[in-house]
Amino acid sequence: MKPKIAISIGDINGIGIAIALEAHLSISEYCQPIYCISDTMLHQAATLLRLAIPDDFVTADVKGYFDIEPGVVSRASGQYSYGSFMKAITLAHDREVDAITTMPIHKEAWSMAGLDYVGHTDLLRKYFKKEAIMMLGCEKLYVALFTEHIPLAKVPQSIEETTLTRFLLDFQRETGAKKIAVLGLNPHAGDNGVLGDEEKIITKAIENANASLSLSIFNGPIVPDIAFTPAFRDKYTYMVAMYHDQGLAPLKALYFDESINVSLNLPIIRTSVDHGTAFDIAYKEKPKQLSYLNAIKAAVTFTTLSV
Amino acid sequence: MKPKIAISIGDINGIGIAIALEAHLSISEYCQPIYCISDTMLHQAATLLRLAIPDDFVTADVKGYFDIEPGVVSRASGQYSYGSFMKAITLAHDREVDAITTMPIHKEAWSMAGLDYVGHTDLLRKYFKKEAIMMLGCEKLYVALFTEHIPLAKVPQSIEETTLTRFLLDFQRETGAKKIAVLGLNPHAGDNGVLGDEEKIITKAIENANASLSLSIFNGPIVPDIAFTPAFRDKYTYMVAMYHDQGLAPLKALYFDESINVSLNLPIIRTSVDHGTAFDIAYKEKPKQLSYLNAIKAAVTFTTLSV
Repeated sequence: MKPKIAISIGDINGIGIAIALEAHLSISEYCQPIYCISDTMLHQAATLLRLAIPDDFVTADVKGYFDIEPGVVSRASGQYSYGSFMKAITLAHDREVDAITTMPIHKEAWSMAGLDYVGHTDLLRKYFKKEAIMMLGCEKLYVALFTEHIPLAKVPQSIEETTLTRFLLDFQRETGAKKIAVLGLNPHAGDNGVLGDEEKIITKAIENANASLSLSIFNGPIVPDIAFTPAFRDKYTYMVAMYHDQGLAPLKALYFDESINVSLNLPIIRTSVDHGTAFDIAYKEKPKQLSYLNAIKAAVTFTTLSV
Repeated sequence: MKPKIAISIGDINGIGIAIALEAHLSISEYCQPIYCISDTMLHQAATLLRLAIPDDFVTADVKGYFDIEPGVVSRASGQYSYGSFMKAITLAHDREVDAITTMPIHKEAWSMAGLDYVGHTDLLRKYFKKEAIMMLGCEKLYVALFTEHIPLAKVPQSIEETTLTRFLLDFQRETGAKKIAVLGLNPHAGDNGVLGDEEKIITKAIENANASLSLSIFNGPIVPDIAFTPAFRDKYTYMVAMYHDQGLAPLKALYFDESINVSLNLPIIRTSVDHGTAFDIAYKEKPKQLSYLNAIKAAVTFTTLSV
């Protein structure tokens, strides 16, 4: 049987609901989608978009009603996208669905609605009180971020042996990866200490993690600026980056449109598109579906993995 | 008339001399090459490589003789590659050539020869007592590095308004670029200060530099992880990265084989291949020529620019 995926519709003033309606037929090949939106809000959006609602478009009710304002940051829309996300989480937590896929929310709209989260992953981390791992990418290359939304100045001091060892082991368990590249922190991976020595800590963590698994899964520290060249991409599908831009700048340079976001190490499986609400084109242009289709496919894949 | 380019042959135990011999005909379309190597060392290398020396292969003598040992790090070879580089510099400084293109040296071999330089750019900086700007890339995308070979932990404190302003102006003058993207330092370019505030300094430097030129040449701070996506690459051919891996990891992910290295802001023009000595394939496999051909073409282009 196809897995059930709860879909949170994101900020309804943005492009999420259009993608959901237009891609319904395609994703129904892989899963049984359940859309977290009320029928009244769905009809309002579909009317504005001049799109038909497919007959088999199953919804899970989310309370609240307001007038959609395409491309506008609003408290009401922020609140509603939060409700949709919470509905999806609850369905997954109650095992009524196998995974969730999220459409983009608007951070400022959440802030206007008094919701104090940096984003989806932050909320998941607080809700489940677990160290969620943020992984981005596509089938060709997945990159996990050891540190995420912190100033660059705080990255070097965050490289710590115990935390990194646990991160590597959690990441391997969640992905089942047989070979993982672990990037260094400094230029030329420190060049034997001449350009920084955090690589000593990274080396230790790699050794600990490999020893703990009695397998040579983890390789590194890899020189960061050659990690994403073709020769390395041929060798590794999974990489661990030490910080946000180290992993995401090369990943997005290579695979911007197709990339998705996966939250690992949580009681539920969650994948997400890797783009924003695109208010500038909402209810005007036909949005790209690739990231969403990949997010759904990844949710299905990781559901199978975790069984 | 075709510009004269002095070519330093790099570590002769590596792949440089094979590339020089095999690409001679191709590069002669664009320039008059002068190879910094003695005739005796040239004959020794050509014999080992079973390659003919072209009739019009003009050399400039470099003192010293030793037995070539393919793929071996040696004091003699380090010393000779230094001699070849110094010969090229002298020819350019004396205006006997218009620019120089360098083949890769081996850092450890230089160290064995008692030469205390991190590499070519470091030597040029000390020799000319000028703040050389390191720019890497290809015709599609050039990235200049504001900081280079320093530990990541020292990068944030290096973001300083006066130095960055001067760097931007020097870079623009040397390239003649009409539009330059200046990257932020932190994830999401600091997200209005939530994820670091060095972007305030970067913003100031951009404003200073634009004001000084009475033109809007510099744009930023650009969010680093989207700076290399197709939409931005369509807009910008020249970018300034705040640190080594921020610029080079995405650049090499996209354009590894074709990229070259250019030293700007010096009394001479110098371009270089963007690969190493490749000791593992030296005198065994036919090395790739693309980076070298591009380095020669860039030398020719920048010669024209500076006239």
